[in-house]
Amino acid sequence: MRIIIDMDEVLADNFPSFYREAKERFGIDVGPEDHRGRKVYDLPGLAEVRNVLYEKGHFRNLPVIENAVEVVRELYVHYEVYIVTTATEFRYSFLDKYEWLEEHFPFIHHSRIVFCGDKSIVHGDFMIDDKAKNLDTFSGTGLLFTSSPNLDEKRYHRVNNWLEVRDYFRRQRAERTAEMA
Amino acid sequence: MRIIIDMDEVLADNFPSFYREAKERFGIDVGPEDHRGRKVYDLPGLAEVRNVLYEKGHFRNLPVIENAVEVVRELYVHYEVYIVTTATEFRYSFLDKYEWLEEHFPFIHHSRIVFCGDKSIVHGDFMIDDKAKNLDTFSGTGLLFTSSPNLDEKRYHRVNNWLEVRDYFRRQRAERTAEMA
Repeated sequence: MRIIIDMDEVLADNFPSFYREAKERFGIDVGPEDHRGRKVYDLPGLAEVRNVLYEKGHFRNLPVIENAVEVVRELYVHYEVYIVTTATEFRYSFLDKYEWLEEHFPFIHHSRIVFCGDKSIVHGDFMIDDKAKNLDTFSGTGLLFTSSPNLDEKRYHRVNNWLEVRDYFRRQRAERTAEMA
Repeated sequence: MRIIIDMDEVLADNFPSFYREAKERFGIDVGPEDHRGRKVYDLPGLAEVRNVLYEKGHFRNLPVIENAVEVVRELYVHYEVYIVTTATEFRYSFLDKYEWLEEHFPFIHHSRIVFCGDKSIVHGDFMIDDKAKNLDTFSGTGLLFTSSPNLDEKRYHRVNNWLEVRDYFRRQRAERTAEMA
């Protein structure tokens, strides 16, 4: 069974960089509750905040989402885990994301990393992603990882944090074991 | 219809670099006829030639395989073309391959580029690749692009050069048009 895991807003948290940029460059205070249902850079006056994504080093220094390391490590033992991330718009993101994974998820083999631009190209059994549009073109089961911009999305099974992901797949394994018994 | 196209030994020619390294570092003359059925770095005494792949700049300066640009441009008009290349073993290959594509294939949108480690993760209708192992895990039609190491491989439809690729897909389109008429 193959699980495809997204990076941004699932393993790595870009929001603090966006909030910092909004404050420092535009003097605007933003927090998670201010961009429910939309992206930080879709807020009035903050389109340019998105430009931090093009900066060398941006993706190298992001904080890890809580409990991601321990749960991905557990999944890696039981499933064929792939990290699939949208990267090809940002030429400096490749090495930054690669070294970030190497630091925080050293147990992930390089053959399990995919940098792409359009996730309709990959296939597998489960996809964990914060963007419904990535789940829309996926042929397996999509799990929507909660993030402020997707709070009103109702079409996918929602996982609010990594402990819920862990429990979801523990239940999956328990059910499979029961079926086989 | 989606066509997945490999880079190394299909769009870009690594062999001249291997031959140069074999000559300069080990004093061994190698040409295409010397490594029929195997990789250059699998020849006796040449294992270390493979290390050039880890060097910054290696993938930035490769020659383009003959007629690749014009034929890929034609395919790009008629199909959903993706460039899918094994890259994640080589941390400097990402930016080098990205800039190489930008220079030689500027019409390819970044969303159509995939850097991966294991091509079993992608799916599509056709795959053009010089390595049978990549075609082995592909669910669509595999086309084996001729290269010295694969000359004895018999399991796949072989295309010897880009003009043969062009003709193969022109026939495909003519047949589809005839079917629809």
